[in-house]
Amino acid sequence: MQLPKFLWMADRLAPGSTIGILGGGQLGRMLSLAAARLGLKTHVFDPDPDAPAKDVTAFCTTAAYTDEAALKAFGNAADVITYEFENIPTAALDILEPLAPIRPTREALRISQDRITEKDFLNSLGLKIAPYRAVDTLPDLEAAMAEIGLPAILKTRRFGYDGKGQARITNTSEAPSALASLKGAPAILEGFIDFSREVSVIGTRALSGAVACFDPGENVHENGILATTTLPSHLTSAETQDAVLLAGRILNALDYVGTLGVELFVTKIGLIVNEIAPRVHNSGHWTEAACTVDQFEQHIRAVAGWPLGDGSRHSNAVMENLIGDDIKTAPDTADAMVNIYGKAEARPGRKMGHITRISPKG
Amino acid sequence: MQLPKFLWMADRLAPGSTIGILGGGQLGRMLSLAAARLGLKTHVFDPDPDAPAKDVTAFCTTAAYTDEAALKAFGNAADVITYEFENIPTAALDILEPLAPIRPTREALRISQDRITEKDFLNSLGLKIAPYRAVDTLPDLEAAMAEIGLPAILKTRRFGYDGKGQARITNTSEAPSALASLKGAPAILEGFIDFSREVSVIGTRALSGAVACFDPGENVHENGILATTTLPSHLTSAETQDAVLLAGRILNALDYVGTLGVELFVTKIGLIVNEIAPRVHNSGHWTEAACTVDQFEQHIRAVAGWPLGDGSRHSNAVMENLIGDDIKTAPDTADAMVNIYGKAEARPGRKMGHITRISPKG
Repeated sequence: MQLPKFLWMADRLAPGSTIGILGGGQLGRMLSLAAARLGLKTHVFDPDPDAPAKDVTAFCTTAAYTDEAALKAFGNAADVITYEFENIPTAALDILEPLAPIRPTREALRISQDRITEKDFLNSLGLKIAPYRAVDTLPDLEAAMAEIGLPAILKTRRFGYDGKGQARITNTSEAPSALASLKGAPAILEGFIDFSREVSVIGTRALSGAVACFDPGENVHENGILATTTLPSHLTSAETQDAVLLAGRILNALDYVGTLGVELFVTKIGLIVNEIAPRVHNSGHWTEAACTVDQFEQHIRAVAGWPLGDGSRHSNAVMENLIGDDIKTAPDTADAMVNIYGKAEARPGRKMGHITRISPKG
Repeated sequence: MQLPKFLWMADRLAPGSTIGILGGGQLGRMLSLAAARLGLKTHVFDPDPDAPAKDVTAFCTTAAYTDEAALKAFGNAADVITYEFENIPTAALDILEPLAPIRPTREALRISQDRITEKDFLNSLGLKIAPYRAVDTLPDLEAAMAEIGLPAILKTRRFGYDGKGQARITNTSEAPSALASLKGAPAILEGFIDFSREVSVIGTRALSGAVACFDPGENVHENGILATTTLPSHLTSAETQDAVLLAGRILNALDYVGTLGVELFVTKIGLIVNEIAPRVHNSGHWTEAACTVDQFEQHIRAVAGWPLGDGSRHSNAVMENLIGDDIKTAPDTADAMVNIYGKAEARPGRKMGHITRISPKG
């Protein structure tokens, strides 16, 4: 009788085991490289034959997320399954679930796939968030504007990233065009937050339940896309403690295993949670240059059932995203840690790489 | 007309280019991972189908170094060729040379493949080395002992590593058995050096001729195998400067492109060069934890024609090799950077991984 794999998954994965990664973009690529340093193999699943992560592993599958046979073969080849993005179709997860443990859990995915579910969850923890209302129709939107007030931001409930699927409303007359811009997708109206800064906390929870958070970084966005993350942030030490504790509460409440990103607004009434991402996060890329163990390795350690590593920060850091043609001069950068994602085409607005400059903590 | 590849090799390789790596052991694996972070592809050539580097790239060849067709296909797939070990058969290089630039140059390989050639070269630069004599027969050995004195070390001229192919002679009566232990291989007798410490300098030379060296590390060997490398070393600042300058002289004299390791003995009469290795070196593994750009990335930058990166040391470091069963507890190590090579079998004396602990420079 063949023992089901989950029986021996109670222990940590041995080096040489295989971590299945759903999604082969830059996050999957960096997860794969982190796994490699720990002696773990990875198997990357992505419909795109040119997905960047496929260059850095011997094992990959090119198939649609609806391809049952491909998913089954992938699930059988993996000792544990993780993912680099939150919008994995539920049907794919149904096929994979009996074959290998999925970490982080499906519950974390379910909650973060829909902005309403996510806000409800954060609300249930008593965390401060922006006022919000579900919006499907123009009357919904008008009622929501009346309750929340303007300015406000209309967003799609699902599949939004890097400022896509969003429209700011400052005047009620803009409501119809804002709604039309979302092309009928279910939406959410969020009250506008008057914040002084944006920060994020990247935290990891081990299979044992142990939690470790990296120092909060301060983010600057340009055109809806993260431009820089700077460490240390301008948070007071009390705010830093608040930020880390609330990330820990989210991780525990989700019975989470892996790395999670929490975006926060710093306001006069304290820290407001903007959104969570159940995966490694762009605002945590600085950790590869300024910590012994980075967010990618922490994630791999967690999903492999290993103890978390030392994520303390040895240096100050400024991470700068390389967007579109920014990548052209990256090879000439000699005074920083350079990371180039291996994407063939440098389209405008596309994340092509990042660089991190460190300096002594002083 | 197809332009020969070397015409555009005058410029730096673009991200997406392919670096061919001869040898798929742990050094090839770490080179491949470093290339990946820079957006460069790698193609690993190794006769062993289970060579560790093959897990971390989509492109590999499993064939003998005498397989002309396989070598040609490999050479054609590569934009530049490098290697992880110095004992590549000359005939293989003859096949590869017209197909893509080989970096570091064949001259560096030729010199370091034979201990006599290497000593002659170091001598020609006026560097201090142990007295040495070529030994093929017992009369050669007896003459060499008389000239050099005892104790002395008899070594094979070629293919030695980790203390293999060596015999120490303290008494003339041991000469026949020492020679017999080398099984007829051409040999060299080296005078014994009374040293207080062993250090090594890892240096890199760019295609432009620019040279950058990492801080010298202090090495402790056990059973002929490197056990630890510690930074900073106990060298005085004058000795540190000497060490770095002599590494620079070696790199320049070889018109070298890539990373090279220089092992030095610290003695009462100054620094004595023990040996050079035309490749990334075990005693440079600490750089991945304590420098923004490590020895592997410097090597890749050099062979790709990129400017060298910032190899300054942000932290103190102790690198510890994990030999044989040492690897078993590696996944539980939480306070250090862990590197596991992905070798299936943990044989005694086999290098399985390493860990590096860093601490503030203070």
